[in-house]
Amino acid sequence: MDRSAEFRKWKAQCLSKADLSRKGSVDEDVVELVQFLNMRDQFFTTSSCAGRILLLDGGINGFEVQKQNCCWLLVTHKLCVKDDVIVALKKANGDATLKFEPFVLHVQCRQLQDAQILHSVAIDAGFRNSGITVGKRGKTMLAVRSTHGLEVPLSHKGKLMVTEEYIDFLLNVANQKMEENKKRIERFYNCLQHALERETMTNLHPKIKEKNNSSYTHKKKNPEKACAQCITKENDKELENDDDDDLGINVTIFPEDY
Amino acid sequence: MDRSAEFRKWKAQCLSKADLSRKGSVDEDVVELVQFLNMRDQFFTTSSCAGRILLLDGGINGFEVQKQNCCWLLVTHKLCVKDDVIVALKKANGDATLKFEPFVLHVQCRQLQDAQILHSVAIDAGFRNSGITVGKRGKTMLAVRSTHGLEVPLSHKGKLMVTEEYIDFLLNVANQKMEENKKRIERFYNCLQHALERETMTNLHPKIKEKNNSSYTHKKKNPEKACAQCITKENDKELENDDDDDLGINVTIFPEDY
Repeated sequence: MDRSAEFRKWKAQCLSKADLSRKGSVDEDVVELVQFLNMRDQFFTTSSCAGRILLLDGGINGFEVQKQNCCWLLVTHKLCVKDDVIVALKKANGDATLKFEPFVLHVQCRQLQDAQILHSVAIDAGFRNSGITVGKRGKTMLAVRSTHGLEVPLSHKGKLMVTEEYIDFLLNVANQKMEENKKRIERFYNCLQHALERETMTNLHPKIKEKNNSSYTHKKKNPEKACAQCITKENDKELENDDDDDLGINVTIFPEDY
Repeated sequence: MDRSAEFRKWKAQCLSKADLSRKGSVDEDVVELVQFLNMRDQFFTTSSCAGRILLLDGGINGFEVQKQNCCWLLVTHKLCVKDDVIVALKKANGDATLKFEPFVLHVQCRQLQDAQILHSVAIDAGFRNSGITVGKRGKTMLAVRSTHGLEVPLSHKGKLMVTEEYIDFLLNVANQKMEENKKRIERFYNCLQHALERETMTNLHPKIKEKNNSSYTHKKKNPEKACAQCITKENDKELENDDDDDLGINVTIFPEDY
């Protein structure tokens, strides 16, 4: 079977299977994006989460929270209010932790070039921990990931370690991250539409390929150049804020744009 | 210039440049690993951090912390004690946040296959947010990243929002993560040595290629199979704990191992 046919087979198999998530359906805020990708021949999504605030009750011996086995005291994809957390915390008898988990998306791509376009769009939209996986048999996945989390231990052996005032303050921070996360999803979706349009144009008119090639190359620290049509000045400032390979880590500058 | 020559040129350029990190040198806990990679023809490292506990003083208007411009009140690559944080917090006049940032490593690879091997080793060692980047001109980077962080707002407009007892509890959690992070670096280094040894053997004896091919394919949820020689039973349990694509997100199972 040729590569394209194999990809179509995988896609059909994957999209026909049941959604095995706890929720059992795609999150509202990413339905349109997921459908947009799945309508394209070169992509299909294998998992997604629009972003959520979680309260988990973990082990009491300092072991890390086991998400699948531990108790989920609260999960919401919307803004969260203090009282919901206070009520949920009453059920904690281990070490409860509040997390904000940003948007995550896994997309299988027909070929490496498709993953590169998607990766570039993700980076430009602020999802700086995104990356490609290439399997032994050539299966190519793009994971869209943000650096934009929050993980706060709140109770120990069932005992609350913080005040209600702190929880209020913390939820304010978490809700701001949720709002920013939503903006980034929109930015990603807009950038994606533009990038794929440009790609289609380039394929139809190969002569302008040279000129348009830069559309899927991101320049470090210069997001507005790579995706001028969909990033506002305000967003640019925010984009600079969660820089995980900043000068705080041991770094040698890349010889050129990689 | 052919691909190998170009890669050698990039490597020479990169390794001859000054270390532009704040610290100005490679962290002690990863020096050996970094040297091991840089000695190999097919790799060179462009940035690294062994893992650290940070206290940052950020903006007061709910804006996210700007790592490069904000005030670093404290940074340590060792275990951290309460008094150091208490003293550092006295200098905060914005929103101070305590972070644990795990090991991160960026490696430029000669070709995609080299990045695949490294990626598989990283996943098997527990660095589940690792991913590949392929640039327009074919520059191939592997980022080793963990899901294993901590980000806790501690003060608001200079006012401490938590008790000393909480800071003590929090540092206990952060220090445990630091210890676990160190184990994972060791596991990654061990797995890497084994994987590259196998790769060398395979290149010397192509007939056993078929048999050994699985060495750089990770099976989901089955790390001990992919890297049996360097993962202990105890580690396996921990590996399962920070599963970011667990059944909590909308997921369709991959058709086969990808």
